[in-house]
Amino acid sequence: MTNKVSTGRFFEDFTLNEAIQHATPRTITAGDCAIYIALYGARQPLFCSAQFAQSLGHKATPVDDLLAFHIAFGKTVPDISVNAIANLGYADVRFLQAVFVGDTLSTSSQVIGLKQNSNGKSGVVWVHSTATNQRGEPVLSWVRWVMLHKSNLDAPAPITVVPTLPSVVAPENLQLPSYFSAANFDAKATGGQYYWEDYQVGECISHAPGMTINPAEHSMATRLYQNNARLHFDDHMMKTSSFGQRLVYGGVVISICRALSYEGLENAISILAINAGTHANPSFAGDTIYTRTEVLDTWALPERTDVAALQLRMVGIKNMPASDIDNIKTESGYHPNVVLDLDYTVLMPSRGKQ
Amino acid sequence: MTNKVSTGRFFEDFTLNEAIQHATPRTITAGDCAIYIALYGARQPLFCSAQFAQSLGHKATPVDDLLAFHIAFGKTVPDISVNAIANLGYADVRFLQAVFVGDTLSTSSQVIGLKQNSNGKSGVVWVHSTATNQRGEPVLSWVRWVMLHKSNLDAPAPITVVPTLPSVVAPENLQLPSYFSAANFDAKATGGQYYWEDYQVGECISHAPGMTINPAEHSMATRLYQNNARLHFDDHMMKTSSFGQRLVYGGVVISICRALSYEGLENAISILAINAGTHANPSFAGDTIYTRTEVLDTWALPERTDVAALQLRMVGIKNMPASDIDNIKTESGYHPNVVLDLDYTVLMPSRGKQ
Amino acid sequence: MTNKVSTGRFFEDFTLNEAIQHATPRTITAGDCAIYIALYGARQPLFCSAQFAQSLGHKATPVDDLLAFHIAFGKTVPDISVNAIANLGYADVRFLQAVFVGDTLSTSSQVIGLKQNSNGKSGVVWVHSTATNQRGEPVLSWVRWVMLHKSNLDAPAPITVVPTLPSVVAPENLQLPSYFSAANFDAKATGGQYYWEDYQVGECISHAPGMTINPAEHSMATRLYQNNARLHFDDHMMKTSSFGQRLVYGGVVISICRALSYEGLENAISILAINAGTHANPSFAGDTIYTRTEVLDTWALPERTDVAALQLRMVGIKNMPASDIDNIKTESGYHPNVVLDLDYTVLMPSRGKQ
Repeated sequence: MTNKVSTGRFFEDFTLNEAIQHATPRTITAGDCAIYIALYGARQPLFCSAQFAQSLGHKATPVDDLLAFHIAFGKTVPDISVNAIANLGYADVRFLQAVFVGDTLSTSSQVIGLKQNSNGKSGVVWVHSTATNQRGEPVLSWVRWVMLHKSNLDAPAPITVVPTLPSVVAPENLQLPSYFSAANFDAKATGGQYYWEDYQVGECISHAPGMTINPAEHSMATRLYQNNARLHFDDHMMKTSSFGQRLVYGGVVISICRALSYEGLENAISILAINAGTHANPSFAGDTIYTRTEVLDTWALPERTDVAALQLRMVGIKNMPASDIDNIKTESGYHPNVVLDLDYTVLMPSRGKQ
Repeated sequence: MTNKVSTGRFFEDFTLNEAIQHATPRTITAGDCAIYIALYGARQPLFCSAQFAQSLGHKATPVDDLLAFHIAFGKTVPDISVNAIANLGYADVRFLQAVFVGDTLSTSSQVIGLKQNSNGKSGVVWVHSTATNQRGEPVLSWVRWVMLHKSNLDAPAPITVVPTLPSVVAPENLQLPSYFSAANFDAKATGGQYYWEDYQVGECISHAPGMTINPAEHSMATRLYQNNARLHFDDHMMKTSSFGQRLVYGGVVISICRALSYEGLENAISILAINAGTHANPSFAGDTIYTRTEVLDTWALPERTDVAALQLRMVGIKNMPASDIDNIKTESGYHPNVVLDLDYTVLMPSRGKQ
Repeated sequence: MTNKVSTGRFFEDFTLNEAIQHATPRTITAGDCAIYIALYGARQPLFCSAQFAQSLGHKATPVDDLLAFHIAFGKTVPDISVNAIANLGYADVRFLQAVFVGDTLSTSSQVIGLKQNSNGKSGVVWVHSTATNQRGEPVLSWVRWVMLHKSNLDAPAPITVVPTLPSVVAPENLQLPSYFSAANFDAKATGGQYYWEDYQVGECISHAPGMTINPAEHSMATRLYQNNARLHFDDHMMKTSSFGQRLVYGGVVISICRALSYEGLENAISILAINAGTHANPSFAGDTIYTRTEVLDTWALPERTDVAALQLRMVGIKNMPASDIDNIKTESGYHPNVVLDLDYTVLMPSRGKQ
């Protein structure tokens, strides 16, 4: 047997400021977009109607923002997190430019933080990742941090650098293409009647329906993103793990919650940013996911009167209707049925739209 | 909690002659068509071979007629049937024009009938729905009727109007594009040896193979159609229903039966109409579907000698080979293994083909 | 009931040198390619990045070689193997030309061998099959042989003809397009660091991860290929078979092993040939597939210095890590966990690349 199979990186294999070019450039196709709809039932017309997309100034139907994110993110897994003990969080996720069918995404990362744990056996790595299209234009960027084992316990601890991360992507950093206009936004296409002005800070929306995760669905989704983290696919191995079965990739839960939250947020055009995200508990095939949304803030956008932003908290709950849960967090942490706590920002048309 | 989540319409929310524009315009892509094949194994060459489609005069491969129907139909669910007690039937389903990849379908409905039930607590609504493409041309139209609860029992009963529906879409209402010609129909592409002249009224064809429905398949199909009826997806909720599990969307059963009936109907080019349809019993994941076909009638088509029509009865049967069932209907109704009874009309090449 | 449903061919229905044109011409789309990635997690950049494909001289992203093979192969099933007692093997599988999205594949076969079994009740048929694109250019060819029952035991035995098959597709028969060049091969796209010169005859690579087959996945794959062999789909029938459940189509196992073997063979650009293949034991939904690779030979290619070939043995193993198996074959045959033994040839860039 030879050792041509990479075992992936461990904590001591990362160096501050190091740049990593990830493999597997990927041309996104109409096939990817259709599978995304089949997996989640997404109904945002921006991503499924060329006419609607063109009415907002786009040349064609953009790729669903979360599909682009999952594909871009998946490329980082073999280099960053294939040996992760835990995916601790992400922040500062920016959707910088629309992605279209035919665009080829590549992802690179820079190590922006390192902190060895006090036990000397593991540590936390922060990376800032950027996905670019075939013209080298950045389309997505984000920070995430993961805890990794050390493989060589004798490797010296790096100097501790913990990056300062924004708690939200500030309004001035939210990107809209210059050609974009919601002047012709047509709510008949969304079926929604609520505009930016209709949402109040503190308001909580309980989205009624649930969606059960079938085994083939989370497997197909994760493979579509070319995310090769073994614990999502190898049931033989996972049967002897503490989970006893394959884990659902957290991105699948985000997409399910986003699709379920359509009812009550019909006019949310697209995602502008993810400010923070935590996978509070694991999900497994067979779980039914429910979701609720809390309005955290309402923001005007610089120089725009047609659209504005809502900062939302999307909570994913398993096997329990969203309206039945009282406290997302308890003294000891998250409620055991909470699987996702995501702080994100969406683009909303204003009532004025001009 | 706020009430931004629509609860859907109840019986008293419908008004005779009211027009409803449904949300979610949808551009159909090559991805949708490939998923359709992956879900059902459809082999009609009109929908999977550009060369075959062009040999009949089409500019490109049309979208499978049932895929177009399911997508167009799915748009009506949130407004019409999300609260349905029962989907009672459909009729007068007309395939008016070929749909191509890149076409965007929108659906609108008109209320054509209302009848409150004698218990005062529910009623039946008839709607006539039309799907149009991005040029506003109608591509599909159909009538269906559903039974709905009243939410407000004090709402006055509407005047009863029960529409008169045709028992079949008459030959003069069947549409073929002006460019269409079967003169170059090539049976080597279909593998079939039987033409319109070879089918006899009363003939019954028992299609041998069965197809088992996996949970992910019916879920993915129904989401692909953006049909949001919760009872197909939410296993947590359905476990406490009388069914004890998620229901399979009836359109999935239609597509399985159509695919299974390929063997024996290889030369059936496309569907011209669905005359009537009943989902006789529910289907669940794990059921194996079989099908048989009865030839109800054979029709010449006005001014055509290259093609003609067969009116067929397609019966779907679960967990029992089609050849083993004696009586589709018993005195008390349908045999408990019958899941579909569909009366439809297909286009068949004539032996002469000129 | 009428007999319009073909029962398929039996042994006595084949004649030496007979040519069979198979049904179902198929235009391959971007949807097919995306589903392939979703089903197997394939990461070869040649098949998922237009930029990478163009860097090697292709006009666009080719269709994954195994996807093209499975689709081309599937067309032969209704005529050749729908009644097979056993699929005994294949050989001389040549990938003659790249297939692109929009190409329409058709397959024809010629009977090249016949041998009635001594029991007089069955026999073996050898066919040479060729898939062509819409310009009539051959893109794939292969030989396979199957054992079939006789339906009419009184049919006379044919003269026995057993074709001579090459043990490998010789280097001079491996096809590369004239425009192809690996001069600009970029290993950052593959993530691999090993070139042709780095692989040694006898070397064995144990690919770590496993992939569990979900029921919907093998069903969807097999239907995508329009392979109608009933034993993959009809669980009601298969429950009373000796297997007790549906069988996984062998092509699914090949694709899983190819995807899993990416790690350690990242720079294997594409498949040039399959020299021999055996499905050693059946696979079922729920099985977890692992794989290992043995380097059988290393070949220069005529007049090429940028690329060369590796002859590999890919062994698929179920429910047991590849590193745990000692002997693929025992005295009595294959180890019961071995599901695939495939001898194939891949294209590898040379370190020099010029």
